[in-house]
Amino acid sequence: MSIVCELCDVRAGDILVSTEQLRVILVDDANYPGFCRVIWNAHVKEMTDLSEADRAVFMQAVWKLEAAIRAVMQPHKMNVASLGNMVPHLHWHLIPRYTDDAHFPNPIWAAAHGNADQAALDARRNLLPQLRQTIISNFAS
Amino acid sequence: MSIVCELCDVRAGDILVSTEQLRVILVDDANYPGFCRVIWNAHVKEMTDLSEADRAVFMQAVWKLEAAIRAVMQPHKMNVASLGNMVPHLHWHLIPRYTDDAHFPNPIWAAAHGNADQAALDARRNLLPQLRQTIISNFAS
Repeated sequence: MSIVCELCDVRAGDILVSTEQLRVILVDDANYPGFCRVIWNAHVKEMTDLSEADRAVFMQAVWKLEAAIRAVMQPHKMNVASLGNMVPHLHWHLIPRYTDDAHFPNPIWAAAHGNADQAALDARRNLLPQLRQTIISNFAS
Repeated sequence: MSIVCELCDVRAGDILVSTEQLRVILVDDANYPGFCRVIWNAHVKEMTDLSEADRAVFMQAVWKLEAAIRAVMQPHKMNVASLGNMVPHLHWHLIPRYTDDAHFPNPIWAAAHGNADQAALDARRNLLPQLRQTIISNFAS
């Protein structure tokens, strides 16, 4: 029996950027337009299992992505996290947060208070084409 | 009226390491012995507000701390997060996670399922003196 890890499939998800070592995907989350992930291609569990050079490559991608999300989505705060309890394959969550979102000021993993501002959410969804373009160009340069 | 940020007080908390730029504290969380934070001393909101050099210093501390926590606490998984929705002053949470802890496999910010293994928790609490020593020595070298 082989153990299948969903993040080992390098073709899965809405991929915006793909390199030999990692990929950037746009997450499909109704409450969090602009939520992106950076996923390491190799099946590695912890950041301190990577070499220092690989960690630097990974974090450079995280900060390049954060800069693009901030520029386009103009969040109140960025949330950045590497958890992996369910899928122990290194990936970073980058989540633009707003005072009117479904969980603010709690982390998105807390219970939703459910009173997100729908008009603000729609306005943010409309920014997604621009976010895609900005991420793709930032990583190309 | 001045706006007071609790993380601007560089003397607060159970400080294990203190440098000109950052400090490492041991968090007092009954469910999560070994939970530590790295706090940037200056009041800065986002990682991409720091210079590349400062980000490197910050992340190097995060990984040095992760290595110490893993070595002593032997977690099933490390959780690493920079959120700051309530206190927008850069700090990283480093949380050793175990399959028998109060929230596993969910993030610690989700609702607790409440069936943590008390004996395992006690055993982990007993490791805290060793964790303190290891963190202090790792940062001194």
